[in-house]
Amino acid sequence: MKPHGPIPSGFSADADGMLLIGGRRADDLAKAAGDTPLFVYDGAMLAARVAEWRRAMPAEVQLHYAMKANPYAPLLGRMAGLVDGFDVASGGELAAALASGMSADHISFAGPGKRDRELEAAISAGATINLESAGEADRALAIGARLGVVPRLAVRVNPDFDLKGSGMKMGGGAKPFGVDAVAVPALVGRLLEAGADWRGFHIFAGSQALDAGAIADTQAQTLALAARLAAEIGRTPPLVNLGGGMGVPYFPGDTAVDAVAVGRALGDALAARDRRLADSRFAMELGRWLVAEAGVYLTRVVDRKTSHGETFLVTDGGLHHQLAASGNFGTVIRRNYPIAVANRFGAEPSETVSVVGCLCTPLDRLGDQVALPYADVHDLVVIFQAGAYGATASPSAFLGQGRAQEMLV
Amino acid sequence: MKPHGPIPSGFSADADGMLLIGGRRADDLAKAAGDTPLFVYDGAMLAARVAEWRRAMPAEVQLHYAMKANPYAPLLGRMAGLVDGFDVASGGELAAALASGMSADHISFAGPGKRDRELEAAISAGATINLESAGEADRALAIGARLGVVPRLAVRVNPDFDLKGSGMKMGGGAKPFGVDAVAVPALVGRLLEAGADWRGFHIFAGSQALDAGAIADTQAQTLALAARLAAEIGRTPPLVNLGGGMGVPYFPGDTAVDAVAVGRALGDALAARDRRLADSRFAMELGRWLVAEAGVYLTRVVDRKTSHGETFLVTDGGLHHQLAASGNFGTVIRRNYPIAVANRFGAEPSETVSVVGCLCTPLDRLGDQVALPYADVHDLVVIFQAGAYGATASPSAFLGQGRAQEMLV
Repeated sequence: MKPHGPIPSGFSADADGMLLIGGRRADDLAKAAGDTPLFVYDGAMLAARVAEWRRAMPAEVQLHYAMKANPYAPLLGRMAGLVDGFDVASGGELAAALASGMSADHISFAGPGKRDRELEAAISAGATINLESAGEADRALAIGARLGVVPRLAVRVNPDFDLKGSGMKMGGGAKPFGVDAVAVPALVGRLLEAGADWRGFHIFAGSQALDAGAIADTQAQTLALAARLAAEIGRTPPLVNLGGGMGVPYFPGDTAVDAVAVGRALGDALAARDRRLADSRFAMELGRWLVAEAGVYLTRVVDRKTSHGETFLVTDGGLHHQLAASGNFGTVIRRNYPIAVANRFGAEPSETVSVVGCLCTPLDRLGDQVALPYADVHDLVVIFQAGAYGATASPSAFLGQGRAQEMLV
Repeated sequence: MKPHGPIPSGFSADADGMLLIGGRRADDLAKAAGDTPLFVYDGAMLAARVAEWRRAMPAEVQLHYAMKANPYAPLLGRMAGLVDGFDVASGGELAAALASGMSADHISFAGPGKRDRELEAAISAGATINLESAGEADRALAIGARLGVVPRLAVRVNPDFDLKGSGMKMGGGAKPFGVDAVAVPALVGRLLEAGADWRGFHIFAGSQALDAGAIADTQAQTLALAARLAAEIGRTPPLVNLGGGMGVPYFPGDTAVDAVAVGRALGDALAARDRRLADSRFAMELGRWLVAEAGVYLTRVVDRKTSHGETFLVTDGGLHHQLAASGNFGTVIRRNYPIAVANRFGAEPSETVSVVGCLCTPLDRLGDQVALPYADVHDLVVIFQAGAYGATASPSAFLGQGRAQEMLV
């Protein structure tokens, strides 16, 4: 038997043992969707998560949603009413953000390979571009001049430090992201000289960390870096985007990040900040932490079989919707995501089984030798932490399967 | 500097140094497609590959195309005229196979999680189902009875051996695929008793092997297993699908599989086969080997930048089209696929660069510290071996990017 990640609190079952999501039975949701597999996102959990963040953080810090985590349109519309801004990573995401009702004033666009047409769309709309290089700055200035629009430009800084213990390191050495800190003052000087509307800094050192102390250290380093750059430039950055970093517990032994501790440390760091940043605004940019727990992936057992004494539950889902849960996206060693039998939720495990997807490849495994209550054909298996980097971060066209259903409740 | 995989022979440049695909310049193809990134598949190379296989293999062995490798409709239509059958892995692939013009008589359907509606579609059409379990057999028989159609049913056997050195092991121990060999005779007995049209065996021990000796050993074991099962059943299997196994060279040091040696060994093994298999037909099922080399992925450089002394070429492509080339699909250690600058094809390398995609994640790397001729914004980078497990095996919706262009020339 191999352990699985911790089931998020906030989920419960009815008297039949059926998992409830947003107060509705998992089987009813599958019926309402018309088919499985199905992603369900709980709108009340999204709102509660944002509220938790606001309680924990200093009031002056704004909350941006990094929509790459989940761009499902109804969820995006919900998030638009909850957060202070959206961060987008492509022209496609920019269009979706604008369609959600988020004002372009509150949209920023980061990404190392922005094409001219994407820069043009952002400048026309009035979104802020987080510049990733001097070359991109030249292109953005030229497009602004051609359009007769003063472009809103921030500089993404490649910091000299990274976020310790983070799943994705975005700083500390040679990176394709942002402008090396040493080159930032000269670039901001050029932007100012060219008459651009300089909006400040975007400093993103890493993501998916669970250690509040590491996140706090990185935020303190980020503030110090912003202050040093502001001093060299001789101007106060209007906005300092402090990046994200707050992760979620996917694997056995993972524990939730202590948001209150992060907020307390950030409050202290802001109170003690350099006078150069006295009039700056601050934002955190979170994706996964805001939406992962609010989402579940429901998949139906199609076959139950044994091979050489091992039991397999074969489902109608798989890595085409849950690439990361299958262990094939950004992890070296495969470990089990939180998993349960939705219609026996909370029941004691009675056997060890492997839960596989329907794809004809040995990579397609959702639960490897996990202890679960008995499940058979037609039962529903649920994968948790499915609200982020699920549907769109997986190869849905693989083996002709197609996309999963999605639903916001 | 880190090496990259071997550039496939069969590609050349014109006098300008521009890569030619199917005799056409890479830049002209990108212009004709209207945008990059772009997959181009060379129809003449597909035909040449099939001809190479037929020259190498015994005449009595049929060639099936495993369309999961590349289901692009124009390519599928081309392959329908070249091979003897298609192997599909879902109802979606079945529909695409039928639309390509391939007769249902020559379509077989394997996959561990076939839903009832997929079984029904296959039985109605007259395709052969490779049964993965006793439970699936029950469902298929019930559906056949309900439809009043005699179902064509083969049994996928989980062999007790695997393909040594293969990238994907599909046999040898507890597997979600097929029926353990020991349980096959009883299952075939039930199929015969129920009046099904029993079509034989599907025995797939692994894929992506480059060692002809290992493939030959596996094929000999497969024939021995089929003969043993036939003796236990007391019937000759009409068809023995010997599986695939022939891989392609992706990485430094990889060399092409010696198809002639595989064919010679298979000819010897068939000549010496058990009399129980005297009247059986045989097939090999290949995906990657047939189509990978015929495909290239063209992506345009959007930015050229340096960070801490390292040079990055940022492209408009990335892991959303080339997940495996980014090292994030089925490999533990990231190594470089064959890569070149398409408009300086064949030129001597002049610098070491990292080629990254446009996605805002450190996972999105197409070439890590590779030696290439100088390339700048607007130049075209090409990834080879892109004809298989590219477009549909990658998360095209990630970060709102969308699918690549595709073209058969």
